[in-house]
Amino acid sequence: MIKVGIIGASGYTGSELLRLLYNHPEAEVIVATSRKWEGKEVWKAHPFLKGFYDLRFTSPDMKNLEGCDVVFTAVPHGEAMKYVPQLMDAGIRVIDISADYRLDKETYEKVYGKKHEGWRDAIYGLTELHREDIKKADLVANPGCYPTGAILAAAPLAEKKIIERVVFDSKSGITGAGNKPTEFTHYPNLHEAIVPYKVTSHRHYYEMVQELGRFQGDVKVSFTPQVFPGSRGILTNAHIFLREELSRDDAYRIYEQFYEGCYFVRLQDEVRLSWVRGSNFCDIAIFVGEDRIVVSSAIDNLVKGASGQAIQNMNVMFGLDEKTGLDFAPLFP
Amino acid sequence: MIKVGIIGASGYTGSELLRLLYNHPEAEVIVATSRKWEGKEVWKAHPFLKGFYDLRFTSPDMKNLEGCDVVFTAVPHGEAMKYVPQLMDAGIRVIDISADYRLDKETYEKVYGKKHEGWRDAIYGLTELHREDIKKADLVANPGCYPTGAILAAAPLAEKKIIERVVFDSKSGITGAGNKPTEFTHYPNLHEAIVPYKVTSHRHYYEMVQELGRFQGDVKVSFTPQVFPGSRGILTNAHIFLREELSRDDAYRIYEQFYEGCYFVRLQDEVRLSWVRGSNFCDIAIFVGEDRIVVSSAIDNLVKGASGQAIQNMNVMFGLDEKTGLDFAPLFP
Amino acid sequence: MIKVGIIGASGYTGSELLRLLYNHPEAEVIVATSRKWEGKEVWKAHPFLKGFYDLRFTSPDMKNLEGCDVVFTAVPHGEAMKYVPQLMDAGIRVIDISADYRLDKETYEKVYGKKHEGWRDAIYGLTELHREDIKKADLVANPGCYPTGAILAAAPLAEKKIIERVVFDSKSGITGAGNKPTEFTHYPNLHEAIVPYKVTSHRHYYEMVQELGRFQGDVKVSFTPQVFPGSRGILTNAHIFLREELSRDDAYRIYEQFYEGCYFVRLQDEVRLSWVRGSNFCDIAIFVGEDRIVVSSAIDNLVKGASGQAIQNMNVMFGLDEKTGLDFAPLFP
Amino acid sequence: MIKVGIIGASGYTGSELLRLLYNHPEAEVIVATSRKWEGKEVWKAHPFLKGFYDLRFTSPDMKNLEGCDVVFTAVPHGEAMKYVPQLMDAGIRVIDISADYRLDKETYEKVYGKKHEGWRDAIYGLTELHREDIKKADLVANPGCYPTGAILAAAPLAEKKIIERVVFDSKSGITGAGNKPTEFTHYPNLHEAIVPYKVTSHRHYYEMVQELGRFQGDVKVSFTPQVFPGSRGILTNAHIFLREELSRDDAYRIYEQFYEGCYFVRLQDEVRLSWVRGSNFCDIAIFVGEDRIVVSSAIDNLVKGASGQAIQNMNVMFGLDEKTGLDFAPLFP
Repeated sequence: MIKVGIIGASGYTGSELLRLLYNHPEAEVIVATSRKWEGKEVWKAHPFLKGFYDLRFTSPDMKNLEGCDVVFTAVPHGEAMKYVPQLMDAGIRVIDISADYRLDKETYEKVYGKKHEGWRDAIYGLTELHREDIKKADLVANPGCYPTGAILAAAPLAEKKIIERVVFDSKSGITGAGNKPTEFTHYPNLHEAIVPYKVTSHRHYYEMVQELGRFQGDVKVSFTPQVFPGSRGILTNAHIFLREELSRDDAYRIYEQFYEGCYFVRLQDEVRLSWVRGSNFCDIAIFVGEDRIVVSSAIDNLVKGASGQAIQNMNVMFGLDEKTGLDFAPLFP
Repeated sequence: MIKVGIIGASGYTGSELLRLLYNHPEAEVIVATSRKWEGKEVWKAHPFLKGFYDLRFTSPDMKNLEGCDVVFTAVPHGEAMKYVPQLMDAGIRVIDISADYRLDKETYEKVYGKKHEGWRDAIYGLTELHREDIKKADLVANPGCYPTGAILAAAPLAEKKIIERVVFDSKSGITGAGNKPTEFTHYPNLHEAIVPYKVTSHRHYYEMVQELGRFQGDVKVSFTPQVFPGSRGILTNAHIFLREELSRDDAYRIYEQFYEGCYFVRLQDEVRLSWVRGSNFCDIAIFVGEDRIVVSSAIDNLVKGASGQAIQNMNVMFGLDEKTGLDFAPLFP
Repeated sequence: MIKVGIIGASGYTGSELLRLLYNHPEAEVIVATSRKWEGKEVWKAHPFLKGFYDLRFTSPDMKNLEGCDVVFTAVPHGEAMKYVPQLMDAGIRVIDISADYRLDKETYEKVYGKKHEGWRDAIYGLTELHREDIKKADLVANPGCYPTGAILAAAPLAEKKIIERVVFDSKSGITGAGNKPTEFTHYPNLHEAIVPYKVTSHRHYYEMVQELGRFQGDVKVSFTPQVFPGSRGILTNAHIFLREELSRDDAYRIYEQFYEGCYFVRLQDEVRLSWVRGSNFCDIAIFVGEDRIVVSSAIDNLVKGASGQAIQNMNVMFGLDEKTGLDFAPLFP
Repeated sequence: MIKVGIIGASGYTGSELLRLLYNHPEAEVIVATSRKWEGKEVWKAHPFLKGFYDLRFTSPDMKNLEGCDVVFTAVPHGEAMKYVPQLMDAGIRVIDISADYRLDKETYEKVYGKKHEGWRDAIYGLTELHREDIKKADLVANPGCYPTGAILAAAPLAEKKIIERVVFDSKSGITGAGNKPTEFTHYPNLHEAIVPYKVTSHRHYYEMVQELGRFQGDVKVSFTPQVFPGSRGILTNAHIFLREELSRDDAYRIYEQFYEGCYFVRLQDEVRLSWVRGSNFCDIAIFVGEDRIVVSSAIDNLVKGASGQAIQNMNVMFGLDEKTGLDFAPLFP
């Protein structure tokens, strides 16, 4: 059994790890930290888990984490860097769900506006793109929720180096904003709403540029996020302008080849958030128009966009079938 | 023109007064107060009103309110009592949208757990029940949102003194919780939810007992509120157990007679929140079963349940047709 | 391995059986019928299941079902009675998700307004109430969605024979109406809505009377259903008027004793549909007021209210731990 | 008083005309047609209008429409062309809310795949662009809902002839699909969903090309529509790639100049559907990024996107202030 620690287990990505790992046959959560809930049973913070765990929250002190084989850091960016070096020095493998290790150090410091005080080299944990490197990684930087859906939608065409320009227009459920109440997440401000935010300046943009840029250095990327009135899910339209024409059949063939052997990427004729909800799937549909190709992707932001992919990465790191513990159907409708 | 002041104009009931009064042919808002937004244009706090008012927020000092004929106090309970006596002493009529003057003093102090430091006698502003007294009132206590829908649903049968017991099960949109973000109003906590709260202890209960008790002293009342995932509206089911049998026709006749001349109460075959949204109507439908009568009522909590009824009361107080400025269709769907 | 057949596998309860049984370690779906989709892969009707089943829909002819150990009839009432006798004659155990076998024959024919042409005696499949009988049953009548949440909320007090009257006010997600588009399920008719329907005349009422009546013959029951704007879930408020006073502690003790050993009933301080979504739990919270007790229950209508409880019953019928294949966490939030 | 007829008054655009015209001081609805509801009071089809109209539906025969000064044709495309020539021959001015007269005849026949059997020249009724021509028009082709928001978002930059490419990514409320229940509008299919449809092939595209092309012949346009879980509203992101750099200030200046005197276009810092709901406003916000400009527009699809703009056009045609009857605040929140 893989012994698992979760730093920051009182938030949405933390509770999602707890939900998913309960049914993982090869892993066991032995530590869950939360300063706020220290000493309390985890189900006190997460009543939906009543009956599932006897575990109590601890502080995130190293001594509490020593027995872990792997630790998930489910904390805000800027926080993870305080734990990661210590964990690695203690020989614990780390999957960081924050943004602290996704970009190169220089870009990180520019984009997030702070000095990185615990730098280590990490593998970018978009499993389908970096599976081989993840196997040997001691530190995996779990991707942002938006980049996961966006990069998977465009990578096969970037690999062919035929993208002139791609415009990602993404719509996320509100859990992406975390579980702390704000003006932004106040119900009447979101009811019957579509709210664009950080319209031309969201930091996840840099992950898209970095990862698509590995395939095609000159790809032009644009990105606009928004929230829709729902709890979970990210629907991304990738409006892709190509350098050459492509038929629908050719396009599907390129995606099929690229994602061969990737259990969690499904090509569909259409995408629906309800067809992936609660699951680790990224569904993709391709629409070929006269002016461009639109590739739509659908993920659950808390699963493939966060905690599910983190477990998928854990599976790969520990030599398990990558769908271990994640092989269940979405919750439709 | 009636010169209107609004104390507490940055909240939902305040902005709703501004929305409604813009089209009132006989009234003009000349003062809108907000400590937080003092000095700013009202549309800065309410961007949906951009272009509608040049007015700026002021502080709620008496000197700012002196020219008003009537002031609406749209502040939390416990706050209104600080303004009402001063306003009345200055000869200004007051419509208080808070809970401070709805109950008798003793009951208020028990239920709200605080000493009342600015007591004045008021008329309970459920217009359909107290129209004659409101005409002459200097202080109207605008009813709570839940009591408005509940009392209107049961009053005609209480007047006949035939109710054995009534159970009000009400579902409110989230604006009823105000515009300040809380755990309760955090979007993912309400999405796809029905949340009962203060299940047997909501303070609006006492208004129901008071008003139905005027008709029938021994009426047994129960009340449970909950929120549903929507912005506006209160749907109340009044499960009424009668002392004698009543046919559906007889029941409708009783309601028709009781609400004769009441423009804002409509008898329907069914009720839908979308049939009253944005309007001052209270729609009522009656269902006669073998075990009981269910009377369902639908209101918009911010209009008939708050600011709309307040304006209806203003109209009555100033000798206008009570539907002046409120005579427009609901926003369906 | 239990060989499972599903008659009527293209609807919501059918797809939910497919979702849940995929992870059942002791059962395997070998037949899924649908006249409409006959010959097509099941994921064509249910794209969210793409990759999960190779199975194709067949017609519901007996010859297709012969190898089954158990068959779920997930069809409308009036339809199930055409299959059940044949299946039983062929030695196949049946779990009927329709209403055809829940009531006694006479009551059924009165309530559903049709002659019952395939009567067999069945055990009412509210597992927590009839576990011992279900073990030996060849035909289990899976309860209605509303009765499941309602009966579980009131049964412990009915067993004590102390209920004077109970009023069930229930709110259901829209999947309860099935997957066929109607005026009722048209999105704009439900958006920001609470819609009472069959306010005093819903047929599920008779299941409540039957089951609570087993405990306390003279219990007075009232029931009103409504839909709320969500996909899954039923929240029921049981407003219970007692013959004697009960403290909150005593009430919890009664429920704890009654549901001892019942994994799927959880006592909570509050209930939230998001704490049970996608799972087989029924969460219950108790609120003791001066005038009555309110017991709120929350279930997922498609799981504990239909397909999940059906599998729970299958487990009991086949001597398995009743949580086999159902032991996973709800999908929060 | 302008005497108004509405052909097709039982649908959403019909009921919206009835809602809005009730408060129009210079117009009166004298005919409302519906084959389905012929002979019934209009509130029977639209219970939210109970108390507002005594009018009964008639058939759309010419003899019923003879006294009208203007007729709105609120029928599906292909239907309007059967009425328009007759109405015009009878000297009645027409505002067609269908798609039948928005494009040139040849494009229409190609795009809509049918022969146009009642061609007349019309003015495209995007009021802000064609106000002068509308004044004299006998036939106004009211724009599609998506084109209204999209064209208003991009027109000022097209007029400057500096657009290289524009990608419109639009999200509409469900009322855009009409009031007839379909698979598409079935509640559980839309709950917590964003559904792209006709991803590269929506017919509204051609209106965008036509109208932006009037300003800048070589503008490259792309368009993808989708629905979001809400009743009303269209939020459009116009991702605009320019031929030259533009500062945020310059961009706002261009829009201010272009929309000078346009009461119903408001420049805001951000857009929210709740800031325009129920009203005829088109709110616009501009975001200048390093790679492109994003212009977001928000309208109510049934008002500025249909019936409200139709009335705005009527006002212009009849020499009234264009905001007559439309000068009220949005319904926030």
